[in-house]
Amino acid sequence: MYIGFIGLGTMGKPMASNLVKAGFKVKVWNRSQEPVEALKSQGAEVAASPADFEDVDILVSMLADDATVSAVIVDGGAMAALKTGAIHINMATISLKLAEHLASAHRQQGHGYIAAPVLGRVDVAEAGNLNILAAGKPALLEQAEPLFAVMGAKTWVFGEEATQANVVKLAANFCLSSAIETMGEASALVRGHGGSGKAFLEMLTSTLFAAPAYKGYGGMIAQERYQPAGFKLTLGLKDVRLALEAAEAAHVPMPFASTMKDNYLDAVANGDGALDWAALATVAARRAGIKG
Amino acid sequence: MYIGFIGLGTMGKPMASNLVKAGFKVKVWNRSQEPVEALKSQGAEVAASPADFEDVDILVSMLADDATVSAVIVDGGAMAALKTGAIHINMATISLKLAEHLASAHRQQGHGYIAAPVLGRVDVAEAGNLNILAAGKPALLEQAEPLFAVMGAKTWVFGEEATQANVVKLAANFCLSSAIETMGEASALVRGHGGSGKAFLEMLTSTLFAAPAYKGYGGMIAQERYQPAGFKLTLGLKDVRLALEAAEAAHVPMPFASTMKDNYLDAVANGDGALDWAALATVAARRAGIKG
Amino acid sequence: MYIGFIGLGTMGKPMASNLVKAGFKVKVWNRSQEPVEALKSQGAEVAASPADFEDVDILVSMLADDATVSAVIVDGGAMAALKTGAIHINMATISLKLAEHLASAHRQQGHGYIAAPVLGRVDVAEAGNLNILAAGKPALLEQAEPLFAVMGAKTWVFGEEATQANVVKLAANFCLSSAIETMGEASALVRGHGGSGKAFLEMLTSTLFAAPAYKGYGGMIAQERYQPAGFKLTLGLKDVRLALEAAEAAHVPMPFASTMKDNYLDAVANGDGALDWAALATVAARRAGIKG
Amino acid sequence: MYIGFIGLGTMGKPMASNLVKAGFKVKVWNRSQEPVEALKSQGAEVAASPADFEDVDILVSMLADDATVSAVIVDGGAMAALKTGAIHINMATISLKLAEHLASAHRQQGHGYIAAPVLGRVDVAEAGNLNILAAGKPALLEQAEPLFAVMGAKTWVFGEEATQANVVKLAANFCLSSAIETMGEASALVRGHGGSGKAFLEMLTSTLFAAPAYKGYGGMIAQERYQPAGFKLTLGLKDVRLALEAAEAAHVPMPFASTMKDNYLDAVANGDGALDWAALATVAARRAGIKG
Repeated sequence: MYIGFIGLGTMGKPMASNLVKAGFKVKVWNRSQEPVEALKSQGAEVAASPADFEDVDILVSMLADDATVSAVIVDGGAMAALKTGAIHINMATISLKLAEHLASAHRQQGHGYIAAPVLGRVDVAEAGNLNILAAGKPALLEQAEPLFAVMGAKTWVFGEEATQANVVKLAANFCLSSAIETMGEASALVRGHGGSGKAFLEMLTSTLFAAPAYKGYGGMIAQERYQPAGFKLTLGLKDVRLALEAAEAAHVPMPFASTMKDNYLDAVANGDGALDWAALATVAARRAGIKG
Repeated sequence: MYIGFIGLGTMGKPMASNLVKAGFKVKVWNRSQEPVEALKSQGAEVAASPADFEDVDILVSMLADDATVSAVIVDGGAMAALKTGAIHINMATISLKLAEHLASAHRQQGHGYIAAPVLGRVDVAEAGNLNILAAGKPALLEQAEPLFAVMGAKTWVFGEEATQANVVKLAANFCLSSAIETMGEASALVRGHGGSGKAFLEMLTSTLFAAPAYKGYGGMIAQERYQPAGFKLTLGLKDVRLALEAAEAAHVPMPFASTMKDNYLDAVANGDGALDWAALATVAARRAGIKG
Repeated sequence: MYIGFIGLGTMGKPMASNLVKAGFKVKVWNRSQEPVEALKSQGAEVAASPADFEDVDILVSMLADDATVSAVIVDGGAMAALKTGAIHINMATISLKLAEHLASAHRQQGHGYIAAPVLGRVDVAEAGNLNILAAGKPALLEQAEPLFAVMGAKTWVFGEEATQANVVKLAANFCLSSAIETMGEASALVRGHGGSGKAFLEMLTSTLFAAPAYKGYGGMIAQERYQPAGFKLTLGLKDVRLALEAAEAAHVPMPFASTMKDNYLDAVANGDGALDWAALATVAARRAGIKG
Repeated sequence: MYIGFIGLGTMGKPMASNLVKAGFKVKVWNRSQEPVEALKSQGAEVAASPADFEDVDILVSMLADDATVSAVIVDGGAMAALKTGAIHINMATISLKLAEHLASAHRQQGHGYIAAPVLGRVDVAEAGNLNILAAGKPALLEQAEPLFAVMGAKTWVFGEEATQANVVKLAANFCLSSAIETMGEASALVRGHGGSGKAFLEMLTSTLFAAPAYKGYGGMIAQERYQPAGFKLTLGLKDVRLALEAAEAAHVPMPFASTMKDNYLDAVANGDGALDWAALATVAARRAGIKG
């Protein structure tokens, strides 16, 4: 099985690397050359352009957002280059609208299409322990499973329509944002009454909320350490926007998502857009006039 | 050490029972007689009234809300009955206003006062594994620790002022409510796009959100099982109101808490007040017109 | 007809003065003496205390809030002093809870009780042009009408129960707060895109929103002139809290009221509590990082 | 001066008609033929297609939304057909993004571009009394003024950039939506306490809120009469979405707009999308369990 891999960013690079290490024949492409060289030194072939994937059986892409996916996969020629029967596994967090469009376009060209966004940050990707949220035809998923087994700890299948995996990813990211906002408001309440936000969060994340999401972000919030950004606040804003667009399409009121988006805008307007999205937690304290 | 225990409801009964089993001399009082008989059969003494605690060294109370605490402890004569040097450990979730009032009134009468609300539902109380959120003078906390060791798995100390424990409890309950609302909105989004709320919640609570709070309430939401109520929705509403009152006192905007309160009202208006507070999660789906 | 008048603040003073000028025999009381002297010089009698109203047929009170009404009318002895058959017209903006309590207590003592909060600021009170929002038994309202005719331009009757007028007043003040918040957000949007908030508000309040509320507050917002405070921001906060309490009692979700309350807290936390409540409009711009 | 007019819907038809009646030479185009025949009978010329406007000096368009504007003006060939120096006056409520795109594209083709959305419903358009919210180069606005004078009562100029008029229109529509939501919540509060929403709204819109917006929508809400739809609820939803997109672009938190959007979705999910947008006011009452 010949694998193509487009998008060697912070997440894509370790994912592709794991595929190479697992013995797959992998051809890679990335806009910037640095990660391409790294993969090449590990044994990967190098594609000349996004359109240079006519031979692969499966094309994996891990790109940043809707705009990049459209630019590289559609306008860049990757989709058009694929041979009949090839499968495109799109692991990016994208809008449901684009997911529908890609699924339909690939179908018309005789390709298989799998949506497979992931849960996990860089260290999890490096360890090959991602949670893979997949949707696609069973026969396609079966072919993809050997790759998923290398990149992830577990594959969760949510249906045959691509959007069914993408909406789960948007819902999960909404839950993460919500946990951050919740800890921000709760800490501000405690601090507003003279208590220690740190002591509160330590207790919270050691007891009822002893989960990776709360422990990770709770620790950052307790220590007010928002750099370096594992996932930028502006990307959190983007994902809550995508969730709200998906909600609007299905007529689902999501007042928490709406509130969160306003707080993201507050954070960006106050200069925190480049910090880790955990900095969303600082909005409540700032509005309450609570100083560091 | 002679212990008084007032309030043998679903939480208080197993807590008092654990004290008796641990060998403490315990005198109990409760408005209804049934749990009193149960404790008596285990070896507890029975008080004639809330004022019949003049001999105890430590009075523990576990009452439902501000109104009950005021009725029993203040108007019912428990406070006035205590001897000089006695300690009142108030384990209820009450308002910061009442906490301040009780602390001050006990001080004037020469009593010690400890605020010690708890985290954990009935089964946790039965197992003596509560998390105890305590605030009070160190010397008082030292005297209370043998009791806490019996009732709880761990004592978390948040300061010397009673309100510092109570505000942490309100903040923690706010986080629980927020988790419920978050899962409700996220599930509605997934279901609105034809996905399975159950599959989504199973994935969520097995991965990033694998914490007791999410697993417990996520399971109830996935199965749409809101009876019997471990903690009534109307009590969740009461606690978010107390959190908002505390927030107002400290000028802390808490938009999630505000949103949640409106959704609690929606749930009550739609007849769900007697269900478990996890039923807050049904509001988003109902508003979106999503049927069971 | 012998009239008592308690509460000679910025609103009460001109209202009492108009009654004196209209030829009524009026006896007044106020905590501070300055306005008492002014009324005396116009011909009013002076009461020795809030309990010195045993002779009056109708007692009008115009006090600041729940606490003051309780302190003066209940604890201060005014209610107890009234003779059988006397009528108390309470023109303050108070909670529904206190309104119910007062109505019931007066009934038990053989008094009539009318709730009659007003719409209008000081200049309107001076001109005798208030809108009076009244509730009470028809026979009582008939007796009160000559006084209302002097103090107000029009009396609006909302029912026989006191709360029915008080809830209308809370609803009306909510609408005013909402108009302020709305103009604040809309102006911030326009300014965020380089437009003039002033030009926008001038157009808005000259066309579809050419109403006193919008013209008055719109002008203040356009000119960013929030002093002197005609109605303090902290009073706006108090009234939205009363509206939310009333909403909770009837299980009415009011998300605009909730949002507004958080923004009031933001304003207070940022030091604007003593400004006119129109300063609520500055919150959106500040959060957006828009400078004056 | 030779005028083209594209878009003869409920608003465009009377606007074009007024231009014809005022003596302008007008050539019209509309997707459906009925209004074209009406205009023809009044003396207008008929264009064969959106591209049949190569001779006009000024092209006025009054189309429904972004998609229609793009389809007709860009893809349909109207823009490409215009001669050098011609002016396009776009009177639709569109996104700031599309406004920027059109302004730029016209500039590149040597055309003038004016954004001129309007305030006013059909009857106001018929009477030639619209408020015209204009932005464009002063020299262009001068040429457009004779047309504006026929269609509107007053032209409000907000700057030289097209977006400056479009953002004002979005802000004004946000204010209208907000007024509807406000009256909905306030009425629900009054009704929840046994009062009459109708009596409340009559008082409100006769006093502090005696403005066209409140009188018009307040009357509809009081009588619960949401058909026929002067402006469909789904269009209200569209406009609040455009406002929120504009707010996001400028990092302006607009919590009222966010809340409103969720309530619009609630209304649509409950089957009210085809009613007048004043039906947004029914959401609060339904959530509170208040029956008609």
